[in-house]
Amino acid sequence: MKFQAPKGTRDYLPEEMITREYVIQTIRNIFEYYGFDTIETPAFEDLELLTAKSGEDVSKQIFRIEREKEKKLGLRFDLTVPLARFLANNPQIPKPFKRYAISPVWRYEEPQAGRMRQFYQADVDICGSTSMEADVECIACAVDCLKALGFKNLRVRINNRKILEGFVELIKRRVPEELKVEFGGLEVFRVIDKIEKIGVEGVKKELERIGLLEKQIEDLLGIITIEGEFKEVLEKGKKLLGNTSEGKKGIEEIEKMYEFSKFYGISDLLVLDFSLARGLDYYTGPIFEIEAETKKKVGSLAGGGRYDNLIELLGGRVTPATGISLGIERIVEVMREEEMFELPETKVKVFVANVDEKVKPEVIKIAQKLRKREIQCQTDMMGRNLTQQLEYADSSRIPYAVIVGPKELKDKKFKLKDMKKKVEEELTLDQIIKIIR
Amino acid sequence: MKFQAPKGTRDYLPEEMITREYVIQTIRNIFEYYGFDTIETPAFEDLELLTAKSGEDVSKQIFRIEREKEKKLGLRFDLTVPLARFLANNPQIPKPFKRYAISPVWRYEEPQAGRMRQFYQADVDICGSTSMEADVECIACAVDCLKALGFKNLRVRINNRKILEGFVELIKRRVPEELKVEFGGLEVFRVIDKIEKIGVEGVKKELERIGLLEKQIEDLLGIITIEGEFKEVLEKGKKLLGNTSEGKKGIEEIEKMYEFSKFYGISDLLVLDFSLARGLDYYTGPIFEIEAETKKKVGSLAGGGRYDNLIELLGGRVTPATGISLGIERIVEVMREEEMFELPETKVKVFVANVDEKVKPEVIKIAQKLRKREIQCQTDMMGRNLTQQLEYADSSRIPYAVIVGPKELKDKKFKLKDMKKKVEEELTLDQIIKIIR
Repeated sequence: MKFQAPKGTRDYLPEEMITREYVIQTIRNIFEYYGFDTIETPAFEDLELLTAKSGEDVSKQIFRIEREKEKKLGLRFDLTVPLARFLANNPQIPKPFKRYAISPVWRYEEPQAGRMRQFYQADVDICGSTSMEADVECIACAVDCLKALGFKNLRVRINNRKILEGFVELIKRRVPEELKVEFGGLEVFRVIDKIEKIGVEGVKKELERIGLLEKQIEDLLGIITIEGEFKEVLEKGKKLLGNTSEGKKGIEEIEKMYEFSKFYGISDLLVLDFSLARGLDYYTGPIFEIEAETKKKVGSLAGGGRYDNLIELLGGRVTPATGISLGIERIVEVMREEEMFELPETKVKVFVANVDEKVKPEVIKIAQKLRKREIQCQTDMMGRNLTQQLEYADSSRIPYAVIVGPKELKDKKFKLKDMKKKVEEELTLDQIIKIIR
Repeated sequence: MKFQAPKGTRDYLPEEMITREYVIQTIRNIFEYYGFDTIETPAFEDLELLTAKSGEDVSKQIFRIEREKEKKLGLRFDLTVPLARFLANNPQIPKPFKRYAISPVWRYEEPQAGRMRQFYQADVDICGSTSMEADVECIACAVDCLKALGFKNLRVRINNRKILEGFVELIKRRVPEELKVEFGGLEVFRVIDKIEKIGVEGVKKELERIGLLEKQIEDLLGIITIEGEFKEVLEKGKKLLGNTSEGKKGIEEIEKMYEFSKFYGISDLLVLDFSLARGLDYYTGPIFEIEAETKKKVGSLAGGGRYDNLIELLGGRVTPATGISLGIERIVEVMREEEMFELPETKVKVFVANVDEKVKPEVIKIAQKLRKREIQCQTDMMGRNLTQQLEYADSSRIPYAVIVGPKELKDKKFKLKDMKKKVEEELTLDQIIKIIR
């Protein structure tokens, strides 16, 4: 092959697009029921904007576009930073601003199973509200999307960056002043975030590397691996964080979220997981991920959190905000593996076949009539005989064929062939239209 | 402002997205009625692929992405080159392959009125058929799109690259051997393509620059500015090109297209315009552009042509192909200027307002019920009083508000307020759902 799709990217065939678009359309509908409107921002942004608050790991993954004499640009790596820039540019928009976006983002990562360099995110964000209601509504909305797609036994893991900060405060206190090594909360969160990938032992090593003492590491791991019923874990956290300033606030936010989750009908899905940290630097409060029960183990299907400072940081007014993102490629992949799709392979419904070239004008006119009646159809353009035409329709998975010859035109009755069942019926055009629609 | 959308790009607000999505959805439906399926290719391609057959002007406009140790990439500047690469990679796909794509493309041009660096193209292409039927079907499909959007008095200008080659052959013959300067057909086409932009005088100068003698220029301009009824222009062209090899073929193709256009019901829209050349290098046969009658003069809304060699050139099998592209931004802009839209400014249908914070749990439950019934709704998340809530609904252009208080909950009857008409009605939730749906 002379040229291929670039490394880490791929093409989607028509039958794959049908499943992708089904997933996207289902999600879009539910986003809209929840009262979100959509905006669109360009695929690239100023490089300086993209690197401002994304963290080192993501900054390295930006596809850079360089043009002489103009600002450096980069392809967006998520939909949240462009939203924050948009809000900084449009302070007049009424708050809360509820926006959704379903669009591609790009990250220059080493390609691996299920990780592409171009992938779609489906995001809802509520900007302007400090209420935990906003966080819970985003979660409820994503839960409804996954349910509508057929996912079962969902689990919503939640945590709070303020709680994590409280834990860091706690373990700092455990060490006498003279032994203290300075490390930041973010550094610790980034390590915790890797726990599923590198395991407890891996986390231990990395925490050591950034300066935590053995005692501190033991304490921290003891806390973040607390498991149990929501209320139980909450009580344990509450006791631990009682005399930390940030940690206490985090616990209060979790309690409020739990209350709201009852009204939204999702409280039974919540799991309080102190080991949840999430990778991006801009989170400030609640963070959350949604998983589904699947035959094969997969990671989270959606994730997000609150970022109260980002919009201000990018030059906008103080605008508290929260949001969640569904990963389209992962969802489609899991649904295919779990055989959750029941969709056709083409959107074409009918092939209007000609018995010979002479009836071609009439065949085109019939096709044009069907199109006016909103029926997806094709005609032959290859000068093929009838057998070849039906073979093409079959190999293209078109479900019906209408056969047109001089006799049929005279009688105004046409053979409708069901390509799968291999049965034919003689019908008028109106009858055919009725059956196919 | 700290950061802006990059030069030559812009953001689209929710009310603008509603018009854009209406246009895209209308076009998508008609593409599907015509039996096209969609594929998706990545936003970027190998730079070498993009520059292979696009011509110098477009090559200069590619946004380049450079990564160490990997192939140079570029953002796609159209949807045809990626389609050709896709077909070269997937020779197994049954022919004809009818594909549509509605996606952004990027060109690094000096931004000017109506020219953006990111813009959407909506393309249909038929690959694998040499029949003029394919060209005419693409045109008919685009005509139906524009009609469905409300455009009136459409004009389809058609020409053929073979005819233009015939004209070049003719004018070359007009000059004795010893005076001849070599110039290529493509060079001449590129100049002719600018006729609307730089006028007849501008074209004269540029033709002189590439080596045409005065006599040749006069001849060529005399030919390409022939005007009149389709049949009349066709006859004149036929006479002129009778003893050229390519020109004759081009005329035959035009005649066939005219025949097919009758069956597709668009023959009365065709205008034969020998000055139509189109910018891209890869065209080999019919070329076409569609214009509409509008109050303010605008350029073409759609354009395309046949490119029989491109797929082979990019490493694929011999695959004749043709297609047409609609320009989404231009269409939306013209429709707004001509006041052709009648659309809401938000997709949100109802604001479920609370009389006080105490009824908040019930308000959320009502909103969740409406969402289950596929009604787009919002609730307050700002702790606002009722007046402020209704002000927000009004400024967000939400058409209805449902007012919920303790009395309403007891009576199971709620005030439904029509925000535009400023009238209220007491109704049950079921009645409200019926009205809004």
